[in-house]
Amino acid sequence: MSVKSQGEAKEKTLITFPSLFGLFKDGFLPSKTHIVGYARSELEKKDFEERLTGGIDKKEVRHGAQVELCASVLISSASFHQSKDKIEEFKKISTYVQGAYDEDDAFKNLESELQKMADKDFDGESHRIYYLAVPPSQFTSLADKLHKNNYKGISNRLVIEKPFGKDSASAKEMMEAITKDGWKQEEIYRIDHFIGDEMARSIMQLRFANELLIDSLFNKDKVASVLIELKETFGCEGRGGYFDEFGIIRDVLQNHSMQLLTFLTMDKPESLEEDHIRDEKVKVLKAIKPIKNDEAVMGQYTGNGDKEGYLEDDSVENKESKTATFGEVVLRIDNDRWQGVPFLLKAGKAIEEDALRIVIQFKQTDKPLYPSQEPNELVIELYEKKVYFKINSKKPSMEGGIVRPEMILDYENKFDGLDAPQPYEFVIHEVLKGNQKSFVRQDELEEEWRIFTPLLHYCEGKDSSKPVEYKYGSNGPKESLEFEKKLGFVPTKDGYNLKKIDVTK
Amino acid sequence: MSVKSQGEAKEKTLITFPSLFGLFKDGFLPSKTHIVGYARSELEKKDFEERLTGGIDKKEVRHGAQVELCASVLISSASFHQSKDKIEEFKKISTYVQGAYDEDDAFKNLESELQKMADKDFDGESHRIYYLAVPPSQFTSLADKLHKNNYKGISNRLVIEKPFGKDSASAKEMMEAITKDGWKQEEIYRIDHFIGDEMARSIMQLRFANELLIDSLFNKDKVASVLIELKETFGCEGRGGYFDEFGIIRDVLQNHSMQLLTFLTMDKPESLEEDHIRDEKVKVLKAIKPIKNDEAVMGQYTGNGDKEGYLEDDSVENKESKTATFGEVVLRIDNDRWQGVPFLLKAGKAIEEDALRIVIQFKQTDKPLYPSQEPNELVIELYEKKVYFKINSKKPSMEGGIVRPEMILDYENKFDGLDAPQPYEFVIHEVLKGNQKSFVRQDELEEEWRIFTPLLHYCEGKDSSKPVEYKYGSNGPKESLEFEKKLGFVPTKDGYNLKKIDVTK
Repeated sequence: MSVKSQGEAKEKTLITFPSLFGLFKDGFLPSKTHIVGYARSELEKKDFEERLTGGIDKKEVRHGAQVELCASVLISSASFHQSKDKIEEFKKISTYVQGAYDEDDAFKNLESELQKMADKDFDGESHRIYYLAVPPSQFTSLADKLHKNNYKGISNRLVIEKPFGKDSASAKEMMEAITKDGWKQEEIYRIDHFIGDEMARSIMQLRFANELLIDSLFNKDKVASVLIELKETFGCEGRGGYFDEFGIIRDVLQNHSMQLLTFLTMDKPESLEEDHIRDEKVKVLKAIKPIKNDEAVMGQYTGNGDKEGYLEDDSVENKESKTATFGEVVLRIDNDRWQGVPFLLKAGKAIEEDALRIVIQFKQTDKPLYPSQEPNELVIELYEKKVYFKINSKKPSMEGGIVRPEMILDYENKFDGLDAPQPYEFVIHEVLKGNQKSFVRQDELEEEWRIFTPLLHYCEGKDSSKPVEYKYGSNGPKESLEFEKKLGFVPTKDGYNLKKIDVTK
Repeated sequence: MSVKSQGEAKEKTLITFPSLFGLFKDGFLPSKTHIVGYARSELEKKDFEERLTGGIDKKEVRHGAQVELCASVLISSASFHQSKDKIEEFKKISTYVQGAYDEDDAFKNLESELQKMADKDFDGESHRIYYLAVPPSQFTSLADKLHKNNYKGISNRLVIEKPFGKDSASAKEMMEAITKDGWKQEEIYRIDHFIGDEMARSIMQLRFANELLIDSLFNKDKVASVLIELKETFGCEGRGGYFDEFGIIRDVLQNHSMQLLTFLTMDKPESLEEDHIRDEKVKVLKAIKPIKNDEAVMGQYTGNGDKEGYLEDDSVENKESKTATFGEVVLRIDNDRWQGVPFLLKAGKAIEEDALRIVIQFKQTDKPLYPSQEPNELVIELYEKKVYFKINSKKPSMEGGIVRPEMILDYENKFDGLDAPQPYEFVIHEVLKGNQKSFVRQDELEEEWRIFTPLLHYCEGKDSSKPVEYKYGSNGPKESLEFEKKLGFVPTKDGYNLKKIDVTK
């Protein structure tokens, strides 16, 4: 395992192994499993184990990315054991193999190691999962080498994670190269870890298991606008090398935000079968037109005296960079259900709060009985694990008047002993089970790129102006609020902080 | 003020004066007010004051009834003062006048006392409210005497409280007698204190201030059935004298339960004007057919070893009494909005829990996506001051599965310093303001009686069998659950106790 010298890469190692360990300790790994780390670095067993378990205490890592490591997981049986929380046991099932990424001999050596394990523990045959925790530039060559030298399990699965290309053309090229190498579509698992988020996974049940109550609200007759926002308090400190190449659209909007959008807007699938679900996701994506260049607000943060601005960061080499650290776009879905409803997708770094939030703002009746009533909202707080209706209610008092409390489901408060899996634990478990519904299908990926590619080309072309500025720690560019206002999204007076209402006021 | 020797009457005194005091201390009485108690008993000033303030500490009295006392409140101005919590100040504005109920001279004496107060404090003229806190048998003669001798204020209001008669005919007779005495309809305030309940008062806002979200659910396409239930853990101990004459229908179902029903089912009024609201209430009542004799379950509690049964109670004189202490009926509303939806009205004494609860059970979709999903519900807990949707949600875990948590608005938790007025405080305040919308209009009362009179006559006639038995402290007669089942009301597995859900199970 070679770890980049940047702090960035170290952070990323905190995802894969802790997730595997989380699955291991909770008994979600098959009873006989070997985890094999494969990378270019020379590592002593001790060093490997230190890296293996170093991130385990860091419980929650929200924003994953790849680590330069090629791990293969061998499976022999589907029966799960109830292992206790033992790091030592976990070390015993983990092995490190050193090798180059570009030499067949190195992969043949890996193969003989894998085969030894299989002979010893699995009667010679094993299921194999190749998890490419490496930069995307390595995907195709590694996929090629692995298929050529190591495609020998009872089953073979290839796991990769975004970014899958940089636009429609490059994504298509990458995927064609991998399948040309011999990998079948059904063997490729494209991770978007937002699909593994507990609250994102709940959206389908929220809608379709409460169909007359909740899903019947999800249409143009009831919904005025929808906001999907990801706000991060931290900027790109030390990660500018990676970030400056990709920007906020590729980092968040084109993939994570779009996954939430499809869960919110897809029609009810015929059944819970994986392709029924993904067919509906692709169907709604197909109804979305590419974003217009003038229907987007792109921003870049500046320093605030305390924190450095994006361009001042040492890790950002191009001091003229037009890369956006904030982006807000509007999507429109051209079908019977959603015609005319603006979907605002917003994401930004160095913003005043950490939040991943969906706000569905409902229409008002034509003739309100109470003059002070405000639009209803359904809010899903993905980080906070809360979902609530913002309603108008009588102020409990002699005189009445309208206040806006929540009807709330607070998952952590409601469910004793809530220990929902982390997103990566869930998606890795889904690879083990071969549940493709939790991954991005090829045509889904193509649609996501189709929608964003023109805007990306425009932003990176010569015609576009620089991103607008916003201060580190602010609520984003003022242009963003104007943009929302123009599209009819009504700012909520009391925000989304679930404050108690003091009736004595 | 003469207080009956039974414990019953003592309990009832705990309502009127504490409510007046509550209004006084919170500054809701006009700045110059005299409260005059008038009754037959010889009472020293000290004794009167003791009775005046004796119940003030007993904050909440849920089930009010009249006390044998005729109090008149004089008003001189509409400006409210901000008095502090001072019982002594309250005593100063309260006076007792002793007098007979059947002699004009006694009322002339009362009048001269009132006039003295008016001359002293109000330049001779006052607004007057006559609150008849006496048994209903006294209503007409007192109304007559008061109109003849004391109808001399700038304005005069007459306040009475149910029971208003015992069936359609007797109610009509009583009301005709009062208006024949000279009182105008707009001067008569018929209290149903459920209208003053904080949560009952919130139903209109819940529906019409959230019209597209919540009121749009209130119709036959969405609602499968509705249950309105009042359960009391105590029986009729010591109150059998009053109760045996009236029974559960007249005590609860025909008035209190019907008020909740009309708030739930009325159409949106043209405006918040009092007659627009009451017009809609009457309109929906008119669409309800009288209850069929065989669509009711009447019950009477028996002893459970610890507590005496109804017939064993000393205060119940008729040991063959067929009076029901439990009743459940089904109403159907014959209009476009509610056609075919059964409305179950249930009330019982000596039941295992104290609850005043509305359960709106929604229909299921024809083709559920999740096999284990259950019907949605909107539940309003009037005592607990909670309103919630019971929804189907993904169980937060690796595998999923459906659980049934609540999306809840808990008023006491949400509103810091919640100190909503008690029902009687509210309705008395509404009399002060002359807000007839918070009282039962004559035609509304007639409709309520029309719906229940045939069933009452049947139950009290020779053809009806005795009420079915249920044990003190049980959940009511088993026939009631069978009745609900037959009408399609689905018992909720986990009840309505808002338990936390243990995901480890």
